[in-house]
Amino acid sequence: MKTKRSERLIDMTYYLLEHPHTLISLSLFSKKYESAKSSISEDLTIVKRTFSERGIGILETIPGASGGVKYIPKMNKQDISQFLDDLIEELNHSKRLLPGGYVYLSDLVGDPKWLRRIGRAIASQYMETEVDSVMTVATKGVPIAQSVAFYLDVPFVIVSRGSKVTEGSTLSINYVSGSSFDRIEKMELSRRSLDMGSKVLIVDDFIKGGGTISGMMSLVEEFNSEVVGATVIAENIFKGKRSVENYTTLLKVDSVDTDDRTINISKGNFSAGLK
Amino acid sequence: MKTKRSERLIDMTYYLLEHPHTLISLSLFSKKYESAKSSISEDLTIVKRTFSERGIGILETIPGASGGVKYIPKMNKQDISQFLDDLIEELNHSKRLLPGGYVYLSDLVGDPKWLRRIGRAIASQYMETEVDSVMTVATKGVPIAQSVAFYLDVPFVIVSRGSKVTEGSTLSINYVSGSSFDRIEKMELSRRSLDMGSKVLIVDDFIKGGGTISGMMSLVEEFNSEVVGATVIAENIFKGKRSVENYTTLLKVDSVDTDDRTINISKGNFSAGLK
Repeated sequence: MKTKRSERLIDMTYYLLEHPHTLISLSLFSKKYESAKSSISEDLTIVKRTFSERGIGILETIPGASGGVKYIPKMNKQDISQFLDDLIEELNHSKRLLPGGYVYLSDLVGDPKWLRRIGRAIASQYMETEVDSVMTVATKGVPIAQSVAFYLDVPFVIVSRGSKVTEGSTLSINYVSGSSFDRIEKMELSRRSLDMGSKVLIVDDFIKGGGTISGMMSLVEEFNSEVVGATVIAENIFKGKRSVENYTTLLKVDSVDTDDRTINISKGNFSAGLK
Repeated sequence: MKTKRSERLIDMTYYLLEHPHTLISLSLFSKKYESAKSSISEDLTIVKRTFSERGIGILETIPGASGGVKYIPKMNKQDISQFLDDLIEELNHSKRLLPGGYVYLSDLVGDPKWLRRIGRAIASQYMETEVDSVMTVATKGVPIAQSVAFYLDVPFVIVSRGSKVTEGSTLSINYVSGSSFDRIEKMELSRRSLDMGSKVLIVDDFIKGGGTISGMMSLVEEFNSEVVGATVIAENIFKGKRSVENYTTLLKVDSVDTDDRTINISKGNFSAGLK
């Protein structure tokens, strides 16, 4: 039975949101709704305009016989800016101050409402970049990687700091952790989690001296793969030269006073690079 | 400017999907779209019917002055059954066999496409249950907990097997791990990650002897909280009495032959309990 436009628009919206970055042919919709391609085409014009006007994302139209539409869940600049303001407001509290100048983030990276915005914002920076896999290190980075991967619609891999017996063969590297101590640690990744020649986006919660990020970069090299970007939620205060320079950060911890228990956070270089 | 029905239906669908389990008043939509409540009400009737017919979920209508609608992203029985069949087909491969009779799952719990279905299926069992928090243990359980939490729209907490210095004060318990060895291990959770008196859903990838799950159950007790359910992706072969009985599992590993490298997986008791 032929489907009504109203029903098609609802189900199409759902289908597109569930299949981001996937080329969907007009034929698929035409068959699914038993409707003429011309009707589907009209539907998609309405969807495209509404997605753009309401900040839902971009509906790309690929013309030709093998063409169709592709939903890109890119956040617009204003929504990202609003999200960063909200995030700073949420974090600028003395109760979030942890020993060592760290900021308590676990509740945010454990809350689907924040994770949707964090993931979508970070992913928005890489929607024109070819990414095969999102990489992070256990444990804090995992929810962030998963959210970013969700909006890029690619797999994510978790680098481990200790051997897991159930993982099969692994590749490991040594890296310098906690820059003031120059401690040597080991990180490793199961061989089958990442194909050689992959394009990898690295994400994590914090960067301090940069040891963890540069460790992951070395590990990516061991897989004969390429780092296409690195983004963290917040850059911590660090006196000295970081072991990595090429990364973006949503936020920057400007100052922390453990005596007064005050903390100051502002927007990082992520905002500056927004197009 | 008054919004057209077609645009309202698209944006409403998006808004509802982004705000599961949240009561949304007719006034909110009426204001958002500058349209009469009677029009919004008609829109919602179409949305409700389409959501139900297309397996998108349930749109609950709460009548009265403080009423509105609530989107419940419950998967229907047929879709869950299809998902379990697909999952079994994917896992029934000798290449997934790991030492100790474990099954390689990391690629699935690192793939947004699978995680959406895993999370939504498990969450569907608990949509009529009051859940305040989803709990799991690091690292493998994290993506599962996050996906389930996403569809229940509640926070998730990660129990750690080792102390993290950046977490503030923690509560810890000792538990018996790897039942054949009777090894005593420690697990802990940051005090501020879980409120006292919470209703907790426990999820994990595998259950073998049940030590990890029963450890988490003890930890929940330490927080004066209540376990409202426990669900795993797969139940491993275990000779002996499990230390926990009250759980559901999507799948069951029936037999593993490490010489022949064959593996047999079937549906677990999760399917039996589907309403």
